[in-house]
Amino acid sequence: MNLKVNGLDDLDLQILDILIKDSRTPFLEIARQCHVSGGTIHVRMKKMEDMGIIKGTKLIVDNSKLGYDVCCFIGIYLDKARSYNFVLDQLKLVKEIVELHYTTGQYSIFVKVICKNIADLQNLLMNKIQSVEGIQRTDTFISLVQSIDRNMELNILDK
Amino acid sequence: MNLKVNGLDDLDLQILDILIKDSRTPFLEIARQCHVSGGTIHVRMKKMEDMGIIKGTKLIVDNSKLGYDVCCFIGIYLDKARSYNFVLDQLKLVKEIVELHYTTGQYSIFVKVICKNIADLQNLLMNKIQSVEGIQRTDTFISLVQSIDRNMELNILDK
Amino acid sequence: MNLKVNGLDDLDLQILDILIKDSRTPFLEIARQCHVSGGTIHVRMKKMEDMGIIKGTKLIVDNSKLGYDVCCFIGIYLDKARSYNFVLDQLKLVKEIVELHYTTGQYSIFVKVICKNIADLQNLLMNKIQSVEGIQRTDTFISLVQSIDRNMELNILDK
Amino acid sequence: MNLKVNGLDDLDLQILDILIKDSRTPFLEIARQCHVSGGTIHVRMKKMEDMGIIKGTKLIVDNSKLGYDVCCFIGIYLDKARSYNFVLDQLKLVKEIVELHYTTGQYSIFVKVICKNIADLQNLLMNKIQSVEGIQRTDTFISLVQSIDRNMELNILDK
Amino acid sequence: MNLKVNGLDDLDLQILDILIKDSRTPFLEIARQCHVSGGTIHVRMKKMEDMGIIKGTKLIVDNSKLGYDVCCFIGIYLDKARSYNFVLDQLKLVKEIVELHYTTGQYSIFVKVICKNIADLQNLLMNKIQSVEGIQRTDTFISLVQSIDRNMELNILDK
Amino acid sequence: MNLKVNGLDDLDLQILDILIKDSRTPFLEIARQCHVSGGTIHVRMKKMEDMGIIKGTKLIVDNSKLGYDVCCFIGIYLDKARSYNFVLDQLKLVKEIVELHYTTGQYSIFVKVICKNIADLQNLLMNKIQSVEGIQRTDTFISLVQSIDRNMELNILDK
Amino acid sequence: MNLKVNGLDDLDLQILDILIKDSRTPFLEIARQCHVSGGTIHVRMKKMEDMGIIKGTKLIVDNSKLGYDVCCFIGIYLDKARSYNFVLDQLKLVKEIVELHYTTGQYSIFVKVICKNIADLQNLLMNKIQSVEGIQRTDTFISLVQSIDRNMELNILDK
Amino acid sequence: MNLKVNGLDDLDLQILDILIKDSRTPFLEIARQCHVSGGTIHVRMKKMEDMGIIKGTKLIVDNSKLGYDVCCFIGIYLDKARSYNFVLDQLKLVKEIVELHYTTGQYSIFVKVICKNIADLQNLLMNKIQSVEGIQRTDTFISLVQSIDRNMELNILDK
Repeated sequence: MNLKVNGLDDLDLQILDILIKDSRTPFLEIARQCHVSGGTIHVRMKKMEDMGIIKGTKLIVDNSKLGYDVCCFIGIYLDKARSYNFVLDQLKLVKEIVELHYTTGQYSIFVKVICKNIADLQNLLMNKIQSVEGIQRTDTFISLVQSIDRNMELNILDK
Repeated sequence: MNLKVNGLDDLDLQILDILIKDSRTPFLEIARQCHVSGGTIHVRMKKMEDMGIIKGTKLIVDNSKLGYDVCCFIGIYLDKARSYNFVLDQLKLVKEIVELHYTTGQYSIFVKVICKNIADLQNLLMNKIQSVEGIQRTDTFISLVQSIDRNMELNILDK
Repeated sequence: MNLKVNGLDDLDLQILDILIKDSRTPFLEIARQCHVSGGTIHVRMKKMEDMGIIKGTKLIVDNSKLGYDVCCFIGIYLDKARSYNFVLDQLKLVKEIVELHYTTGQYSIFVKVICKNIADLQNLLMNKIQSVEGIQRTDTFISLVQSIDRNMELNILDK
Repeated sequence: MNLKVNGLDDLDLQILDILIKDSRTPFLEIARQCHVSGGTIHVRMKKMEDMGIIKGTKLIVDNSKLGYDVCCFIGIYLDKARSYNFVLDQLKLVKEIVELHYTTGQYSIFVKVICKNIADLQNLLMNKIQSVEGIQRTDTFISLVQSIDRNMELNILDK
Repeated sequence: MNLKVNGLDDLDLQILDILIKDSRTPFLEIARQCHVSGGTIHVRMKKMEDMGIIKGTKLIVDNSKLGYDVCCFIGIYLDKARSYNFVLDQLKLVKEIVELHYTTGQYSIFVKVICKNIADLQNLLMNKIQSVEGIQRTDTFISLVQSIDRNMELNILDK
Repeated sequence: MNLKVNGLDDLDLQILDILIKDSRTPFLEIARQCHVSGGTIHVRMKKMEDMGIIKGTKLIVDNSKLGYDVCCFIGIYLDKARSYNFVLDQLKLVKEIVELHYTTGQYSIFVKVICKNIADLQNLLMNKIQSVEGIQRTDTFISLVQSIDRNMELNILDK
Repeated sequence: MNLKVNGLDDLDLQILDILIKDSRTPFLEIARQCHVSGGTIHVRMKKMEDMGIIKGTKLIVDNSKLGYDVCCFIGIYLDKARSYNFVLDQLKLVKEIVELHYTTGQYSIFVKVICKNIADLQNLLMNKIQSVEGIQRTDTFISLVQSIDRNMELNILDK
Repeated sequence: MNLKVNGLDDLDLQILDILIKDSRTPFLEIARQCHVSGGTIHVRMKKMEDMGIIKGTKLIVDNSKLGYDVCCFIGIYLDKARSYNFVLDQLKLVKEIVELHYTTGQYSIFVKVICKNIADLQNLLMNKIQSVEGIQRTDTFISLVQSIDRNMELNILDK
């Protein structure tokens, strides 16, 4: 897979690399590191946003310190495979779900959830997830500790 | 769970709320929205970073457009439970692993991986993960499509 | 978790500790050990009962010597997750069920059951549990021997 | 199964029935209800204790109000079936384990655990249970809510 | 468990022991070994048949040499637990089923089947078992070789 | 599969059919039903025994009335597939095992066991089966009731 | 199993053997190797085609080089066992399915699929397979690499 | 995925399409259908063979009519993930294995096997597969009937 296929040149990749490491780096600092003008950075950022390569930024907070102690993964079994689209629409309304995947393997739907505590998780499962018509049962894994949480490293040498 | 227990007041929460929605919002814009000075925003940000509540920012990119087509979850079984720490140290060296959890349920370790394609995944599994001493076997779920990818919503009404 | 948060002082904890070890200890004996009057013990017991900390006492009998030879755990799968409340109401009527949990993991409901013998267990499963509408199937583990059966130890040093 | 086989008569069963309902019932009150003297109750209690039918009493406390929020069941797989006795001896030293069963089904050992919170559970699993030599892996079910917790009902009509 | 509880004496047990080892032993030979008359043997046999202790005899044939090459075990899952009685009635009509058990564990029904070959097994599963209303799915284990096939040994020393 | 391939004629099959239905049928009665002499029956029986088609007879007793209350199936996992022969030799010494199969599916070895009660089963599993070197773990299904126990029906019309 | 039962002689087997190794071998070359005339080869081929022993030939292409990167196996669970025939008819219309088996074990139907990439697989699962009425869920294994792909070797020495 | 990326033009694809449908089509017939000379077909075939797109041809025989009645899939678990390469080398020597895949999901290795009958399968599993050092256990699914067996259809419209 050659990144240049997607119309990105070395400067684009260098900008991405800096922002992946620290998304708050000021444009002027990026410009300085890349030996180009700030305007060029703006143009390139605009291009990568238009191409849909850069989709936004995300603040990384310590969920636990904000009172969100429980992170878990929930495998969902449907009553029948055809219920997928209906169930997906209902689950989009559940704010505690931060990721939802359609995966190979035994689960029909696989979600990642952040909630406050075990009582909150119980309420979430009983009243927001398992109450959805079409869900047969769920299988919950609670993350007791998360030892790695980092960005994918952009492999520039591969281009 | 009362957020004020953690020493955060309404202004802190308002700042967090703005940054969780768009982590690149300039401090002066945050100040304007909160009706305080830019210096105040700096003070509060510094405080929340010192408290470890704000841990950094993350650029959200379209992995697929950068040639990283495969996102998967891997459940790892160890040969014996006591191998955990040794295996964890080895897995920290594997750059494709972006999350690593110690979870309840059947897996000893549960990781999320981003890689380029199926050949890359095969190489990752065979040569970087399954070659680690202490790993008995792995169970891989490939995400065929991810329909939800969003931040936890800070529930300010709960404070 | 500081126990004093809950309004308990050292005397309360000392009383609890004595009763957790032997719930039939006479109040006067507790008073003597704690170097306070029997009336004080009554007041403290009343307070802890009112707070819901002390919920009652339980006689420990040898089930086997009373002809109750079979202790087992039953994982229950529902036909759909939404049947939970209806099924729970039905299972509350089954006297052989001494514990019922809503758990993470593969089972929708997880119960502990005491019955007389294998014929009794068969009758219980067929006629009292599996006959409940909404139960798809059950998975029964018979306890062949129970090697530990004890109270949680109140960790007073943690306060 | 006729209870009289075990040498219990109707008075014994009536005493047991009263104490199973409330283990703190004073002996004189039991005597009054049974229309016998307090001395008779003492004699019968002594007999049932000597026979091992009555093994003691247990205070029922609200674990959650004492800061013990997490109740879970852990299925334990051994590296080989022959490790059972060694592992059992190690697990007896773990105070958080309140029940330990040797069961039919897939697990070698099945335990019930009470601990304070998720961090406590993580510590328990990693440092007290999975560190035991001979344990291959564990499968943990967290009880999100316990809807039934009661004594077996002594079926006197069956005698 | 004392066998004499069931009204059997040493002579009964001796007769059973001889017949369990070879069910075709002539009564006169049994009588000779037991040092009693043939009439006595008849009386005892009649008693044990009336008590339901002796239920009959079974010829042991080499299924394979009669063209019945496939012995397998089939775990049956029902669509709902309440379908048990209806499904049982249907399965009684399937001649290839030689044993049917209601077991603890994951299966609702567990059967042993003898059939001629793989094509016969396919026909049996598709047209005689899976066509029964109420059966959700089956899990088949084919016996590739049977290394032990023998009677329970009557433990006379235990009486 | 044509039975005549194996050198059996109609008379042989008729004899087998009678004996499969009742293995104690006297030879003269078989002779009468088949319209041949008793000597012919003897010759044919001898031939089928020599061919290994008839392997013996088995008394069918009510295990439960003899104090053998527990029938169960045990799936055995080995530590490594190569331990099979060694483990098989050890299990042949365990009298409670009445059938042992090498099957497709998840278990390495699958056995049927008859024992007296749950305490007997516990002893069997712990001290006779799981103590065998090479056995990693076992999965036990207890038969709560056996609703079908019959011979394969010889399908004479198929010949 | 004697191949001659099926009416094949040594020449037939020799021809099969040559063609199994290289199905494009010209008939004259086969004739030369077998020391017979080309006409004989034609006659024999015709006979084996008429007997249904030779069913055709298949070009072996490198799927990956033609843009078909994903080979996977899909285990299919039905909502009820009786849906088999209906589901089979629907699946025959799905061109990506190259093999479909009715197997022992946990799956109702087991298929092998060749498709272009992960997006193609997602479309196949969601819109062509899981949309079939009667399919409850699927379990997909992606082949990351195929290390053996060869013909069965005709064991001529066994005849 | 544009096939032309791989340097194939319409004529190449047309040739492939004809051969995928019938790999024995003579070159002159292909030439006639494509309105080009036989020499052109030779050149194109040579090019596609050199590119590794065409890897050979395969005779499709009716395994069952040749006495090979059993087709099965075997999931293989290793004692440790690192044994993969050693085990692969051993399994390449087992002629009955016609496909071997390294897959996502629970199995370390997944193979397809063709053998003669159940006795042959037992021998294969016990003496050729499970005897390989590094294999912990296997899980075998026998194909009772194969309802689809066909080539991938080259989707020319997609180019």
